[in-house]
Amino acid sequence: MPIDPAAAIEVTAYRWVPEMARGFVKDMRLRWALEEIGLPYRVRLVGGAGGDKSSEHLADQPFGQVPVLREGDLTLFESGAILVHLGDKDERLLPRDRVARARAIGWVFAALNSVEPFLQSLLLVRFGGTGQDWQARAMDAVRPYAEKRLGQLAAALGPRDWLADRFSIGDLVMADVLRAAPEPELVAVHPNLAAFVERATARPAFRAAMAAQLADFESEPA
Amino acid sequence: MPIDPAAAIEVTAYRWVPEMARGFVKDMRLRWALEEIGLPYRVRLVGGAGGDKSSEHLADQPFGQVPVLREGDLTLFESGAILVHLGDKDERLLPRDRVARARAIGWVFAALNSVEPFLQSLLLVRFGGTGQDWQARAMDAVRPYAEKRLGQLAAALGPRDWLADRFSIGDLVMADVLRAAPEPELVAVHPNLAAFVERATARPAFRAAMAAQLADFESEPA
Repeated sequence: MPIDPAAAIEVTAYRWVPEMARGFVKDMRLRWALEEIGLPYRVRLVGGAGGDKSSEHLADQPFGQVPVLREGDLTLFESGAILVHLGDKDERLLPRDRVARARAIGWVFAALNSVEPFLQSLLLVRFGGTGQDWQARAMDAVRPYAEKRLGQLAAALGPRDWLADRFSIGDLVMADVLRAAPEPELVAVHPNLAAFVERATARPAFRAAMAAQLADFESEPA
Repeated sequence: MPIDPAAAIEVTAYRWVPEMARGFVKDMRLRWALEEIGLPYRVRLVGGAGGDKSSEHLADQPFGQVPVLREGDLTLFESGAILVHLGDKDERLLPRDRVARARAIGWVFAALNSVEPFLQSLLLVRFGGTGQDWQARAMDAVRPYAEKRLGQLAAALGPRDWLADRFSIGDLVMADVLRAAPEPELVAVHPNLAAFVERATARPAFRAAMAAQLADFESEPA
């Protein structure tokens, strides 16, 4: 278990989130990567209900979110950038080979810019349209964009276990994006994508990260 | 002018797009970066109206889009990943210093995962809701998410010229995201963001990249 209060790496996580968000806050990606390579980290809890909008936290993370990574003189936000940073520490996360490394980073960006935004649009319409009579029609109108991307991703993955020859931060973040799909059936209709998520989340490092995130939440908002 | 048919680096661009998309296709980001460092590239044109869904192109770019970069044995997609790859060639794009490098890559991810998706949601609702009576109400409901992110970005930029101490691929892609905002007033209400976009797009490298992209389009779809 790599949680160690004396560790050189600090991961910032939320002190409290609503039940439905537990296990899905994005410090999961860092905890998971660190568990994959057995690298110890300490946790700093911030915020309460609604994130952390303190000026101290906004100086580290302009959008008031988590995670932030601190390591020596480096303070870094954006889970994708932190995964690249951690990947450079260990080839089990990011291959050393020049071509394989670039392509694995390509999949990190694909997850965060070519897949997640289309799922998130559906979520924004759901949240923004709560209680509105147009909500269902608007969701029907943006859903095809998400369906198209997931179909293209399924075709790209094909029968392989991972997006490239072996597991990398590209698979880690893609699986994390897919498991959070606001409508799980969008992924489930593609058996290879569903199996990919199963395979990724069955990894001992994912399970350890999940247990660690859940254990850190307080039962009531501060 | 770094366009050279014998160059080692190949950038894939569209042969044709509608008038309104000209100057905004994402090979701009690569052309701009390459112009910044005077690195020659050749262009390979693909597709016609509606992108390129050929199996050859999908093997390089699973979402049927551009750009793709080819360089020796590397074929890479996702403009963010390609910018990191190009950044590692020249410190004018990406600092060598470990901390500054990680933070510049952080801004690339911030542009592509914390800002662009919120602008894009507005665009998806606009496109998906064309001709529908709920379109305006749905756009009103998702617009606040974009407004919030841009306000946070404006606060993070503050009075500085660039997101970090000096221009990097983080500024390049952030400026490219902001100039494509589906409602320009979302950016214009923040004078420092508007000035940031002006500053970035006044760079000779941006202007050269723009001229090169525009010159490559054919007048009619294939």
